[in-house]
Amino acid sequence: MSSIDINCDLGESYGTYRIGNDEGIIPFVTSVNIACGFHAGDPTTMRKTVKLALENKVAIGAHPGFNDVLGFGRREINISPSEIYDLVVYQIGALEAIVKSEGGAMQHVKPHGALYNMAAKDIHLAEAVAKAVYKVNPEYILFGLANSEIIRAGKRYGLNVANEVFADRTYQSDGSLTPRTQEQALIHDPNYAAKQILHMVKEKKIVSVQEEEVPIQADTICIHGDSNEGLSIVKTIRKTLLQSNISIQNFKQSEAKH
Amino acid sequence: MSSIDINCDLGESYGTYRIGNDEGIIPFVTSVNIACGFHAGDPTTMRKTVKLALENKVAIGAHPGFNDVLGFGRREINISPSEIYDLVVYQIGALEAIVKSEGGAMQHVKPHGALYNMAAKDIHLAEAVAKAVYKVNPEYILFGLANSEIIRAGKRYGLNVANEVFADRTYQSDGSLTPRTQEQALIHDPNYAAKQILHMVKEKKIVSVQEEEVPIQADTICIHGDSNEGLSIVKTIRKTLLQSNISIQNFKQSEAKH
Amino acid sequence: MSSIDINCDLGESYGTYRIGNDEGIIPFVTSVNIACGFHAGDPTTMRKTVKLALENKVAIGAHPGFNDVLGFGRREINISPSEIYDLVVYQIGALEAIVKSEGGAMQHVKPHGALYNMAAKDIHLAEAVAKAVYKVNPEYILFGLANSEIIRAGKRYGLNVANEVFADRTYQSDGSLTPRTQEQALIHDPNYAAKQILHMVKEKKIVSVQEEEVPIQADTICIHGDSNEGLSIVKTIRKTLLQSNISIQNFKQSEAKH
Amino acid sequence: MSSIDINCDLGESYGTYRIGNDEGIIPFVTSVNIACGFHAGDPTTMRKTVKLALENKVAIGAHPGFNDVLGFGRREINISPSEIYDLVVYQIGALEAIVKSEGGAMQHVKPHGALYNMAAKDIHLAEAVAKAVYKVNPEYILFGLANSEIIRAGKRYGLNVANEVFADRTYQSDGSLTPRTQEQALIHDPNYAAKQILHMVKEKKIVSVQEEEVPIQADTICIHGDSNEGLSIVKTIRKTLLQSNISIQNFKQSEAKH
Repeated sequence: MSSIDINCDLGESYGTYRIGNDEGIIPFVTSVNIACGFHAGDPTTMRKTVKLALENKVAIGAHPGFNDVLGFGRREINISPSEIYDLVVYQIGALEAIVKSEGGAMQHVKPHGALYNMAAKDIHLAEAVAKAVYKVNPEYILFGLANSEIIRAGKRYGLNVANEVFADRTYQSDGSLTPRTQEQALIHDPNYAAKQILHMVKEKKIVSVQEEEVPIQADTICIHGDSNEGLSIVKTIRKTLLQSNISIQNFKQSEAKH
Repeated sequence: MSSIDINCDLGESYGTYRIGNDEGIIPFVTSVNIACGFHAGDPTTMRKTVKLALENKVAIGAHPGFNDVLGFGRREINISPSEIYDLVVYQIGALEAIVKSEGGAMQHVKPHGALYNMAAKDIHLAEAVAKAVYKVNPEYILFGLANSEIIRAGKRYGLNVANEVFADRTYQSDGSLTPRTQEQALIHDPNYAAKQILHMVKEKKIVSVQEEEVPIQADTICIHGDSNEGLSIVKTIRKTLLQSNISIQNFKQSEAKH
Repeated sequence: MSSIDINCDLGESYGTYRIGNDEGIIPFVTSVNIACGFHAGDPTTMRKTVKLALENKVAIGAHPGFNDVLGFGRREINISPSEIYDLVVYQIGALEAIVKSEGGAMQHVKPHGALYNMAAKDIHLAEAVAKAVYKVNPEYILFGLANSEIIRAGKRYGLNVANEVFADRTYQSDGSLTPRTQEQALIHDPNYAAKQILHMVKEKKIVSVQEEEVPIQADTICIHGDSNEGLSIVKTIRKTLLQSNISIQNFKQSEAKH
Repeated sequence: MSSIDINCDLGESYGTYRIGNDEGIIPFVTSVNIACGFHAGDPTTMRKTVKLALENKVAIGAHPGFNDVLGFGRREINISPSEIYDLVVYQIGALEAIVKSEGGAMQHVKPHGALYNMAAKDIHLAEAVAKAVYKVNPEYILFGLANSEIIRAGKRYGLNVANEVFADRTYQSDGSLTPRTQEQALIHDPNYAAKQILHMVKEKKIVSVQEEEVPIQADTICIHGDSNEGLSIVKTIRKTLLQSNISIQNFKQSEAKH
């Protein structure tokens, strides 16, 4: 029986500022990516989120980003690969200590926002992120855009990697995401989203906006829980997958079985 | 033969901004406290400093402080003990990952600036810092003001503690440091400084500014290397200690012998 | 006919983070205090908020605070009066330029959070804030806690001052606010709140929690609009004041009449 | 008699961190650009620097940059023109209030670092910066790279502009600066630097590294004072200009004469 992981970003509040719907979305996912204080989150929010994750028995990952709370880590900043390496190691370590202090263990690392996108395309940044994960703990799984540079970099370091696909986004024939600036970028229909995911998981293919079949590897599905639409999409996807006998579990659970 | 550790603060530069004389002072110390990015330091400076420490074979400690680069961690900020706990765990973890990624291991934790002073007096903050160290790694040694609340809190958690004394400061009859606002607070004469340290190490006593003998435990001496006076003081102290057959070594070395 | 101003804090969002209910509360107030980027707000949020204020024809004031977004300016930071002076001048200037670039003019300055509370009690900090307002523009009105040090400091500089009272707080017999840690600190009943305000405005007196009549000067009422209760309180207050022939207007409007 | 301005960047210290040689360089310049707290500087450093400028009777300008102390404003950040507009207005206002509180008046605005370079090439960012200056005070002079987009944008807004040339940099045949990554980018010989400046001022031409004569407009010369070489270069330039009967003065002085 095949299986897939579902992940979402958590712990993006900052001091008094609240963002996201952490309690609402966590029952529907198997892995969570926790902000590490650079683009969102702060030490107290991180601890609270780690506790929530442990209570819900989901796998925990670090979600390192650029040092830019004001821009929420979404603005591209021109930083050298060696600085990227340094700031990713720093953030993984910070979360790791909090997880450890709560008696848990980390599963994975997924870069955030602009860092995620830049490391998907730029081989040097991809190397820097993969090296950071490898140097802190070679057992950590590296999450990144399916079939991108960061997946290749992770493999070169001998890391376990997770190809990430998006529940609510369409794809181009070259396998990339349709840019948000284009009309067809987002999927709003839960049934369409679920059908696309099922096709990815069962056939390892996706139908692009150009109506071509494109090969894709899907190890983990990224969902967003801060809207009713997002919740509706994840529920439909879960139902569809389970009806097709595809189990939803993270990589620790998956490993435990084999 | 008795022995003592000498420590100094390192890695306090920030981006383009340079502070301190890290290369100049490191040959004279056995332990270093590295800033963790909250009051000073940044991921790239931290890595550079960790490398310097490993090359010089000195023991490495985390130097967590308040999140206040502008105030260099010297301004008191009214934060709850549980937030202190969170930010100390965070910073230890961040440095730990960098040390690990360079193949090293950490020895100790010493709070910085206002956090150091507040945790020396306030039992709740002292508890928070000690708990943070304990939860991340109970093998880490907690450095703090000799005979202060933080030393007592560390002992309650079963941590190894290091009572810190200051090479260039005078003491009051209650065992506290003479406040910097008072005239006799600082020692400028290297011979006087060395004599005071020797008295502490051999007799476990200090002569206060009120000319009374006060008991004091000295496990590690804090020095500053950013002035010629500071360098002169540490050199005289080292010579005086060695002539009295007191070895200068950190706690890892000390342990290795027994 | 007597009159009173009603003010609220606005523009406290930060980048992606949203806080408050700016559009909802603005119809009920005559003056707004806009965060200046140190404890909340950012240049883009400030412009958006200034535009909203100008569209709603309310008077604009600067709301300077400590440089501490994570603590939302509510944590006491140990800063010298001269540094307070510098950071208040800075923040007034920043907002002033944005207001000017939108074709408006500023009316007042009200310190925020911990700075507000500290400057209400500490004569040196009060002096620093008053001097900052005076030096940037002696025509600006200084808002501060009724009958506190900051009001006295403002008067010494020859500034127009506005004694601020709180719609949803009870008072002690010494004229101070009941600390939030005490049970009776907050008023939840709109009618009680309105009655208290009316008593202040008409009789210049308040009944303390100790059931004594205490003299108080009320020039402006601080309200909060981020809850239904807050909105309910301000609506009841407005109705009660208008029924008693007390006009609700800011100081520019008030001046224009005379 | 022709004249030229000499400017340098000042007030780039940050809290405890010291950078530059403000007291050493100021006697040799006629205009200074003061950091506004986003990439360097803080309210207290700004006041201290404004006082130094007023004492030395040099013209004061705002030096706004990206919100990135760690990167010293030298890292490109992907920000929209409207956000650039907002952050430039903010920073001009902040410095303006400090200058005003010290009894002075501002002369100009010069963007810093990555913002300077990006606004020299990108017409939309150039527009945003020029609009910010215009909206705060249309009398302010806009400093920017000679013959670049920002100069053209300033002219479109009807601003007085100052074409800036560099004392220690070589130029390409298209009028741009030789990138720092290339070998011939920097000029170390004071006499060569002085000769190049004289040629610019007298003939409005420069000899490129490709040995072609290129037209250039030089209204203000940017110098750096944090090295002995920099001081030596500015002294030689000053001597050379004065010997050729070219007066060295800022735009306020220049205007006062006519």
